[in-house]
This record gives sequence, structure tokens and C-alpha cells, in this order.
Amino acid sequence: MTPCYNFHMKINPFLPFFSPKGIVLSGVSQDPNKLGYALARNLFLSGYPGAIHYVNPKGGELFGQKIFTSILDTPSPVDLAVLLVPPTSVPQAMKETGQRGIKAAIIATGGFKETGPEGAKLEEEVLQIAESFGIRFIGPNCIGIINTHFPFDTSFLQPPGPPAGDMAFLSHSGAICAAVIDWIRGQGGGLSHLFSLGNQTSVSESDLLNLIANDPKTKVITLYLEGVKQGGEFIRGASETVRKKPIVALKVGRYESGKRAAASHTGALAGQESAFDAAFEKAGVLRANTTEEMFQWARALAWCPLPGGNRVAVLTNSGGPGVTAADALEQHGMKLADLQDSTITALSKFLPSAASLRNPVDMLASAVPEHFSESLRLLLEDDGVDSVIVISPPPPPSTTGAVVKAMLPVIQSHNKPVLLVLMGSEQIGEAVSLARAAEIPDYRFPEAAASALGALTRYATYRIQPRNEVIGLKGIQIKKARLMTQEFLPGGWLDQDQTSGLLEAFGIQTSGLALAREKDQAVKIASKIGYPVVLKLASADISHKSDIGGVVLNLDTEEEVREAFDLILERAKQAHPQARIDGVHVQRMITGGQEVITGFVRDPQFGPMLMFGSGGVEVEGLKDVAFGLAPLSAEEAGQMVLRTWAGRKLRGFRSIAEADFCSVIDTLLRLSELAVKMPEILEMEINPLKVLEPGKGSIAIDIRAKITG
Amino acid sequence: MTPCYNFHMKINPFLPFFSPKGIVLSGVSQDPNKLGYALARNLFLSGYPGAIHYVNPKGGELFGQKIFTSILDTPSPVDLAVLLVPPTSVPQAMKETGQRGIKAAIIATGGFKETGPEGAKLEEEVLQIAESFGIRFIGPNCIGIINTHFPFDTSFLQPPGPPAGDMAFLSHSGAICAAVIDWIRGQGGGLSHLFSLGNQTSVSESDLLNLIANDPKTKVITLYLEGVKQGGEFIRGASETVRKKPIVALKVGRYESGKRAAASHTGALAGQESAFDAAFEKAGVLRANTTEEMFQWARALAWCPLPGGNRVAVLTNSGGPGVTAADALEQHGMKLADLQDSTITALSKFLPSAASLRNPVDMLASAVPEHFSESLRLLLEDDGVDSVIVISPPPPPSTTGAVVKAMLPVIQSHNKPVLLVLMGSEQIGEAVSLARAAEIPDYRFPEAAASALGALTRYATYRIQPRNEVIGLKGIQIKKARLMTQEFLPGGWLDQDQTSGLLEAFGIQTSGLALAREKDQAVKIASKIGYPVVLKLASADISHKSDIGGVVLNLDTEEEVREAFDLILERAKQAHPQARIDGVHVQRMITGGQEVITGFVRDPQFGPMLMFGSGGVEVEGLKDVAFGLAPLSAEEAGQMVLRTWAGRKLRGFRSIAEADFCSVIDTLLRLSELAVKMPEILEMEINPLKVLEPGKGSIAIDIRAKITG
Repeated sequence: MTPCYNFHMKINPFLPFFSPKGIVLSGVSQDPNKLGYALARNLFLSGYPGAIHYVNPKGGELFGQKIFTSILDTPSPVDLAVLLVPPTSVPQAMKETGQRGIKAAIIATGGFKETGPEGAKLEEEVLQIAESFGIRFIGPNCIGIINTHFPFDTSFLQPPGPPAGDMAFLSHSGAICAAVIDWIRGQGGGLSHLFSLGNQTSVSESDLLNLIANDPKTKVITLYLEGVKQGGEFIRGASETVRKKPIVALKVGRYESGKRAAASHTGALAGQESAFDAAFEKAGVLRANTTEEMFQWARALAWCPLPGGNRVAVLTNSGGPGVTAADALEQHGMKLADLQDSTITALSKFLPSAASLRNPVDMLASAVPEHFSESLRLLLEDDGVDSVIVISPPPPPSTTGAVVKAMLPVIQSHNKPVLLVLMGSEQIGEAVSLARAAEIPDYRFPEAAASALGALTRYATYRIQPRNEVIGLKGIQIKKARLMTQEFLPGGWLDQDQTSGLLEAFGIQTSGLALAREKDQAVKIASKIGYPVVLKLASADISHKSDIGGVVLNLDTEEEVREAFDLILERAKQAHPQARIDGVHVQRMITGGQEVITGFVRDPQFGPMLMFGSGGVEVEGLKDVAFGLAPLSAEEAGQMVLRTWAGRKLRGFRSIAEADFCSVIDTLLRLSELAVKMPEILEMEINPLKVLEPGKGSIAIDIRAKITG
Repeated sequence: MTPCYNFHMKINPFLPFFSPKGIVLSGVSQDPNKLGYALARNLFLSGYPGAIHYVNPKGGELFGQKIFTSILDTPSPVDLAVLLVPPTSVPQAMKETGQRGIKAAIIATGGFKETGPEGAKLEEEVLQIAESFGIRFIGPNCIGIINTHFPFDTSFLQPPGPPAGDMAFLSHSGAICAAVIDWIRGQGGGLSHLFSLGNQTSVSESDLLNLIANDPKTKVITLYLEGVKQGGEFIRGASETVRKKPIVALKVGRYESGKRAAASHTGALAGQESAFDAAFEKAGVLRANTTEEMFQWARALAWCPLPGGNRVAVLTNSGGPGVTAADALEQHGMKLADLQDSTITALSKFLPSAASLRNPVDMLASAVPEHFSESLRLLLEDDGVDSVIVISPPPPPSTTGAVVKAMLPVIQSHNKPVLLVLMGSEQIGEAVSLARAAEIPDYRFPEAAASALGALTRYATYRIQPRNEVIGLKGIQIKKARLMTQEFLPGGWLDQDQTSGLLEAFGIQTSGLALAREKDQAVKIASKIGYPVVLKLASADISHKSDIGGVVLNLDTEEEVREAFDLILERAKQAHPQARIDGVHVQRMITGGQEVITGFVRDPQFGPMLMFGSGGVEVEGLKDVAFGLAPLSAEEAGQMVLRTWAGRKLRGFRSIAEADFCSVIDTLLRLSELAVKMPEILEMEINPLKVLEPGKGSIAIDIRAKITG
């Protein structure tokens, strides 16, 4: 083996979690009431094709095989160790795993970080041992792994295990795994992989995504997350995966997240949930609201071709459910397709004259299975239709099974998604079985089908659009900005003239603010930036400057500037005799334009997060804001702006004149760049950013920024 | 029978739909493939204790009974006719029904209004015949009635019919009925009554609510509505019913409703859906978002005692689902109960030390059935807990059935709601059966249980709070207002001085606006209302007055008023030489205060509907508005105001000073009174209403109103 091949030969360290060559189970038991017995039984019965080795210090025999007394004694091949020994024995077992040369482990045992500081210490000890041997492990405090295709099962759950299928499920909660295995069987779905990740001490979902993305047996990935440890890796891994396979995530713990200390409006509004929303949006991960919704989406994502757009036809034999579907579709961002005249004419040839041929197509209760199949064929062949929802309430003239049977060949010979709403329960058994065997997703109610189709259509746009291409920006002077920040006092909030300089170095226009310590200097600055100007008290000690008359607007002449300078200093001394006063800030007077807020904070998981929205003092009450993670692409910035009313009205609304929309996108991209390139700036806010008429740009008026201490 | 008893003897005309003494089925068939056969079979097999009479012009025999050739020939007793004859034969059948002396009918036949103008004409003919005989009928185009307890079944659906239960279901869609019957069986629920209402030509849901409210077999009422014909009657009937039994409604057709022509901001924002939301809110009807949610809520509403508040304890044996439940509870307006120290101490005595004893209580996976039951008992006995959600993922050490069995006596011996989340599918069969037999609602996922508990808790507040008591208002001069409107020109928009007078007659302060045709008159008015004043161009022809300089603010002296008067007229003539100019409006200059919008429109179904929210020109974009139906109670007005950010910030927020909240409620109540008492005012809007500091009141600045033509 020549060195130049080493690069290609590098083995993914997580491979043993997918296709282990041999598994050692440490902590097995001969007592059928013990979890250590269940563990061994499940693997033994799973059909695992590799070698299984049992370990227990007491020795003995299990399923006709010898129980070794130490991991060290187990013969080759073995590349995965499952530890179900008491917590205090885990360090020793991990040591033996390392000494045996095994590089992948699962710690099923609980009693670690989740139980308090003592457990956390033990967990840290185990991690150090593992790292010293180069071992990556899943858990502790988890249920293990099930792979239904390889197959193998390292769980200690009661049988039966999950049916084999095409959905990978990764979960931070072990209890949810057990529930999902049982529940999914009743739903006609199946799993390819189940990963219970426990405390995620060494291996998290991000580590496994790449291998799952390339697994031919998996068509959709579902995640049950209680948080994310490495935000950047998660976004990178998920973004890459989504190009191959859809990911649906349920993030729980929304209301536990609490609020940040509110240093700025941006900080006050940028909660942990906004960051997760922004991260999922950036990565193209579909965020489900409930566990059930996650799996209902997953079936459509696994089984349906991708739709070309959001135009949906609804086919039914009764009005009510059709209306319900239309409602739900609009709610999920879909629209009812306008059917072509030729489609309508063709439908009219065999449907009763009282049938409704506009979308939703209501064939009336007399519809027979052939009406369903022929109408569906016409809808699928209509170029204005991207997908179809077929709704079948229990039809009196025939059975739902016959309806599905008639439609199957039509669905299978077209490459557009068809979702079935088979209403009822006891009368639809045959129909449901037929649909599932043919991998056509079925739902009980129109709302669930519409929601799933919405997710499928969103995923199609994620696949089609290259949304995350960050473009290069001109006129950015990073060196200049670096030099500036080196001179700033570390810690706390920056002066406005400092923040102005920083923004300008990144090509964001400001109102040309500069500090004048003396009256003459103020006049000089004013004539340099051009009249009219505004004078503002410069004092870090006085926060509400306009309240004490510390702001004078609209100064047109040198004379007025001199007068205002004296007035401001006098008022300041009167109101706050003890305050340190630096002088007066001079800036351009900007009239007209729309006012918005923008800024960024640094999320502990996901890094710099930008905000845009309705500014002013009411920003926290109105909550008309949107978030996006840096680095922003132009597409992402545009989407973010348009999610707010502040952004939509930039295009003009009634008596509100249109403003320079493009300059706002440019400002956001530059602020994103600043956030990425200047990690020493912890937080920044422009409130207001004045957006002038189209072509005239945007100007940062009031700017706050916090520098690292 | 003496006349004075007549009052008491008056029989509810809808009684035969609940307990008919004898039923005639017209349009029966001997051919098992015909709906007329299915109709007869279903009633025959339903166990109906009264007389059944069959009618078909061909005569013959069915189920051992003679088929009469005319309704006229049927013997007594008979007080309900079911017509399943061809559409064109329905008028004749209705005539015979009337001649036979039957006052209640069901027209199952379709082919009426739902098929177009010709069908509508036929339907009108049938209605006239029915009314001439004093007949009330359900349908046409419906599936009929099922009463599982009396029992009887006039549907032609395939058996089996719905299981007997405690839920009444009234539906505008027939197809949904068939689906629900089958689906509900699988859910372990049951129906007391099913009413398929079809085209609601003669009988609508409002007519039946009173009898259902008093039916001892019904514990909850579910409505599937595509619209409401008589808005006022619906609200009255539902409000009264809700005092006895909960109503859950699903209103479909949200996105079909379209927009009103936008005469004012209020009109533009007040869509049909806002009116339905307001109507349900006023009546105390719970609005479900999906069909499934409606029935999931209904089971909790039918089976659980009412909670005393919104403090919920969550009991589980695993962390993940507990967190999911906590999330969902907060989303539905509930909060996690703070457990008493004594409860926590008691739990700690038998739960493992690593268990989490704070709410959610996580007993860990080792929990046995006795841990569930004993923990549940402690939680139910905690005075700080109003209700409990118990979550049982498939537990390895025992079965879910054993867990439920252990908890049953505890649940039954306490008077607080307990909702069960039995996770899984195939392993929970026994547990589900046990729970349903004991009438304890079960759900598959925590989110569904939280949503149902939210509905139950909202219903409890509807039952407890007398929310709709409209209080008398002082200083309302209705006669004066009437005299005023009689002098207004009919049709179109009123002048601001007219609207000001109207508001003042109802005790709403305005800025004392008056029209000055001459300069001297302007000065006179100004000195009367007090300086500073504002002058505004008075011209119905010029709409954007400030754009042409037609508004001059802050005039302090007689001299300034004279100057401004001339200036305004000059500018107006210059800008719009052809416009009719009435003079200049003089009003008080109001400074400070918060600006809000309020107004009302008349909804075609539900009558006067008030709006409150964030005003200004952006009102339609921000959509920070809430709606309420007149007559408003103080409680309703308060709730409405607090649903908006504009309303919440009246209480002060950061640098925004508190404003006179109470005066806003007073203004809303007076506007509500105006809307009720002055039907000739079609629409009215105050934008802005200036809300001054506490104790100083609110002042209507700009007022628009439209009078009937």
C-alpha cells in the first residue's frame, strides 16, 4: 500500500455503526428478566450476519455460545462494543474496548450527566478514556442502534422491533424510540435505521448524517432533537444531506429556552427558537410541529416523486372534504391548480352534468372506481397540475379498496405526487393495505395530506434552488476595520463614531457621524458632510439624550450649528452635572425614507444571526422581525426581508412610497460579512436604517455595537 | 285543556327529529342495489321502537310489510316523513306529507340548489309547499338522521352505523358524515345523534341546538359548518347551549371567502373568517382547526370533569415526551403547575433518586404500574394542580395495560381531568380498551393531549365567567343622534363634522371639529374650543388633504388662524380648481398620547362587528387588529383590546408612557352601542383615536362613516 493511496483508504470512523464486522456485548445476562438478556436476545434474533461475542465477568454460556469474562478475550472479527454494565464499571469496560483495538462503542447504561454533577464527572472520565484510544461512542443513556436491512439490533427493547423500511430515525430521546417503533408499525411505515443518541457525548446526529445520506436503503431522515451541540457542523452536514435526501426535524424544548439578557432589541428578540428556525431554514431541513406530523410528512417524502411546483388538483366524490382540502392547501402555501380547458372538457364527457369540474373536482357520490382512475389520469396529464390529492370518503356504490385498486396503475405510470385521503376506519382496511404496498402515502383527513404535500413541495424547492451561494461584495476594507477595532477599548459598547467607521469600512452608508469636541470642529465637520445636519450630545453616561434636549435637528447654517452646540452642552450640564461629556456628534440630516431595524447577535450554537424588521421603540412589541444565519446569500436575505411587513412595504403600499429594496439586501449582506469577519464585534444594531427612494440607497442612522472584552 | 295551559303545551316543532312516533319512508325499493332499499333496511334494523311505513307508487311488500302507494294512505301514528324520491317528484311528495298532517320531514334526495339555478327553483317550490303546511324539513341533499339511543336511523349508508355514544354531530357535508361514522368507531368514540343538514333550506343547526342541549345522552356537540345562515340565531342558540354543554366547531371554506370591497381599513380587514372567529368567541364555541382535532377535543370535553384552572402536571417515565408535552401545553395557553413541597417530598419517598420530581415528573424507565398510580394520586391531591397528563411510552418492565389498570381507580376517585398519552400502536391495545371503557380520553402523542386539554380548559372558563353582560352606559343621547341622521344626505360618506356630532351624542370625545365657511367663523370656533387648533380643508372632492397642504397644525392665535384659512383655500384652488370646497374644519390640536384605530362594519351574517388595533396608514399591512361582535360586554372589549399589540402597549412599554386604557374600553362600548342603535350607519372608523395619559380619556381625531342610501 503506497502512501499516496492513504487518502482514499481513510475509513469513516462511524462505519461500524452501520455495518459492524463483529459485535461484543458487555454486560449480558442469563436471566430473562434482565436487560442484559434482552440485549443479547435482540441481537441474536436480529439476523445479524457477523460475529457476536458475549461478555460478563461471571462467564457462563448464552444461546449456545461461551460468555467471555473480559472484552480483552473476545476473538476477531470485532469492531463494535455495546456496553450495558453498571455506570461505575463503564470506565474499565471502555479501557478494555480500547485495549482490544475496537474503535466504535455504544454505551447503553444510564446514570451519567443526566443524573447530576457526579454522573457528569463519570461521563467526562469515560470520554477521556475513549479519546485516548481514538474510540467514538454513541450514548451513554441510550437504547442503541437498529439497522433493519444489514440487519442488526443492539437495543434491549421488547420485541417486535421496527418493520424494515426506508426511514432513518435519529433521536435524542430513548423513550420516543420505543414509542415510534410500535407506532410506526400501525402506520404501515418502516425504518431503515434507528439511532438512539442518548447524551451525545462523543457522537451526535451531525456525525452520522453523511453515511445515512449515502445509504441506499434510506429515503428520508427524521430527527427528534432536544438541542444541537455543534451548530455549524449540523448546518453543513444537513445542507449536504438535503441535496440527496429530505430531512424532517422535530425540535422539542421550545418553551424551556428562556430569554437572553436584553442588551439590544436584536438580542431581546433573538431567542434559541429563532436560531433553530433560521438554522433549519438555512440547511433546508423541514421543521415539523408534532411527532405525528413528522412521520406523516416523512411518508410522502420517502414515497412520492418531487412536484414541479405548488399547483394542486383535488379529486373527490363529495364537496365537503374538497373544501377542507382547499383550505388546508392554502394554509400550507399551496394553491389550487387552474385546470386546462381540455381537461375540463374531457372530464365532462363521463362525469354527471351536476359534477363540479373546476378544481376541486367533485365527481359526486355516484362516482365509480373507473371515474376516479380516469379523472385522476386527466388531472395528472394536465400541465398546470403539479400534484394531486384524491379524497375518498366511504363511497356507497363501491368499496374504497376498489377505488384505490383502479387508481394504482394510473399513479404508477405518472411521475407526479399523488396523496390519498382514505376517510374512515374499519371500511378502509383493504384500501390502506393496497396503497401502502404500492408506496402511496395515505391519510385519514384532508388536512394531514395537505400538510404533507406542503412539506414535499417545500423540499422540492430546496432541491431545485441553489439558495446558499454567498456572493462577493465590493468595497470591503477588512484591514481598515481590523486596525480600527484594535484601537477600540475592549469590552462594552462602542461610541457611535466608532461604529460608523466600522460600517463604512464594510461599505454601509452612515449619516457621516463624527465627534466634535469643540465648537469650531463641529462647524468644520458640518461643512464637510454637508448641510442640513443634526447635532447630538456625545456622552456614554447619558442614555436618553433626546429627553433632555440633547438632540437638535435640521441645522442649516454655521451659525445654527454654533448655537446648537452651546445649547446642547448647557442642557446636558444642567440635567446631569456629574456626567462625563465628550462633546457633540455631528451627522447628516436625512429626511424621508422608510425606517427599518437590522442587526446581528451571536448565537451560542449557530454563530452570527442577523435580524431585520420594523424598527423604532416598538420593535419588541410588534415582533415584526425575521432572522437569518450568516453568511447570508442574496436569496436568503431577500426571503428574510420579505417575511416581514417592514420588508414588504419597501415595495410601496397605498400612500407609502416605494423605497430602495435592493440597498437593504446589500446592507444585510455587508452586515453578514462584518459579522463573519469581525468576531470581536459581539452584537450590532442599526435602528433606524433609513431606506431612501429607489436608487438612493440606505443609510444607517443610529448604530450600537458591543465589542469583546 | 284550558287556554292558559297552551303556553306550556307548545310543542317544539323539531321534536320528531329526536323521537318520532312513526316514520314514513317514501321512495323505498325492493332492489337491494338501490338506495331506497338501503334506507328501509337501515331503519328496519336500527331497533326503532315506533311504526315504520313504506311508500312506493309501485306498491308491493318489504320486510314482511305492505308498501303503500301514497303517503296519504299511511296509518297513524306517523309524524316524520323521509323522502328519497326523484327530485321532480319531491314537490308532490311534500304536498302529500302536508295533507297527511305530518309536520316534520327529511329530504334525502339531491339535485336541488347545489346543482344550479334550475335546482334552486325546484328547492324554492318545495320550501313554499312545506311552509304552506307548516312543515319543517331537513335537507334536501342530505344523508338524514341517526339517533343511536332512541334509536332510529334514516340514512342509506352502508352498515355498520355509528357506535352509540355521547357526542352529537351536526354536519353541512354528507360525505363527512359517512367518513366520521366509520372513523369514530376506530377511535373508540360514539355518537348520540348525527344530523346531516344538506342544503339547510328549512332547518339549520341553530334550530336543533336547544333540543340537543337538553338531551341527557349527549355530552358534547360537534359541528361541521360550511357557513351559517342566521348569524344572530346561531350566536344566541350556541351561547345558551354552551352554558350546558360544550360545542366544538370546524368551519371550512376559510380561503374561499374572498375579500370585501375595501371602503375603509376596517372593511378591508374584516373578512368572513374574522366574523366567524368573533362569533365563536362571543358564543363560547371552541373552534377546531382540523376534523381530527375536533373529535380529539370532543372526547376530553365529553368525558372529563372541568378543570379549575390552567395549571397542568405532566407525569411520565421518560424525559423526551415530557418536554414535548410541556412545549405543547404552553402553546395552548396552559402552564406547568408548580408542585407543592409536600408533593415533591412524598414523591421522593418511593421514586428513584435520579427521578425528576419537578413538573414534568419523570419517574424514569424503571417505573412500575404502582409508581404511576401513586404519583398520579399525589399530583391529583396537590391543590396547585388543575389537571394531569400521564404519558406512557412502551415501558420495558411492564405493559401499558397494567399501567392504565393501576391508575383507573385513582382517576375515578378524583374530580380533576386526567388525559392519557399511550404511545405506540400494537403494544397498547389492552391499555386503550381499558381507558375507553372507563371514559378516560387517550391519545397517541403528547401534542394531541395538550391541545385537547387546552380546549377543555377554555371551555371551563366559558362556563365560569359571565362574559357577555352588557352594561348600561351613561350620557347617550339617542334621540339627538336620530335627529341628526335624519338630516344627513342618504348614501355615501358623511362629513367629519357630522360624524363628530354623532360620536359626541354617544359620549365619545372628539377634537371638537366644526366647519367654518368663513374666516371669522373659523376664529369664533377656535376661541370656543380653545387654542391651539388645527385647520383642515373641508371638501368631499379632495381626499388626500395633507398632500396638497390642506392641513395646518398648531395654530396658537387668531392671527394664525386667519392666515392659515386663506392659505388652505388658496392651495386647494390651485391644486384642484374644479373641486367643491365647503370651507375649513377647525378642531382642537391634540398633542401626545398613543394612536390607535377603532371602527365597525356590518357583517352580513353576524351584524355589527367592531375592530380595534394599530392604526395609521399601515393598519392593513401590520394587521395588528382584533374583532368583536356587538353588543360588546366590558369583558369582551377588554379581551379584544389585549389581543393586539396596540392594546397591550396602552399599559406602557419601555419608553412608551402608559395611556388611558379604561377610556378605550369605554369608547369601544359606546361605539358598539352606536352600531346597535343606529342601523343606518353602515360602517364607521376612527383613525386615529388618540389615547391620552391615564384619566385624561381618548379623543377621536379623524372619523369616517358611511350612511345607508
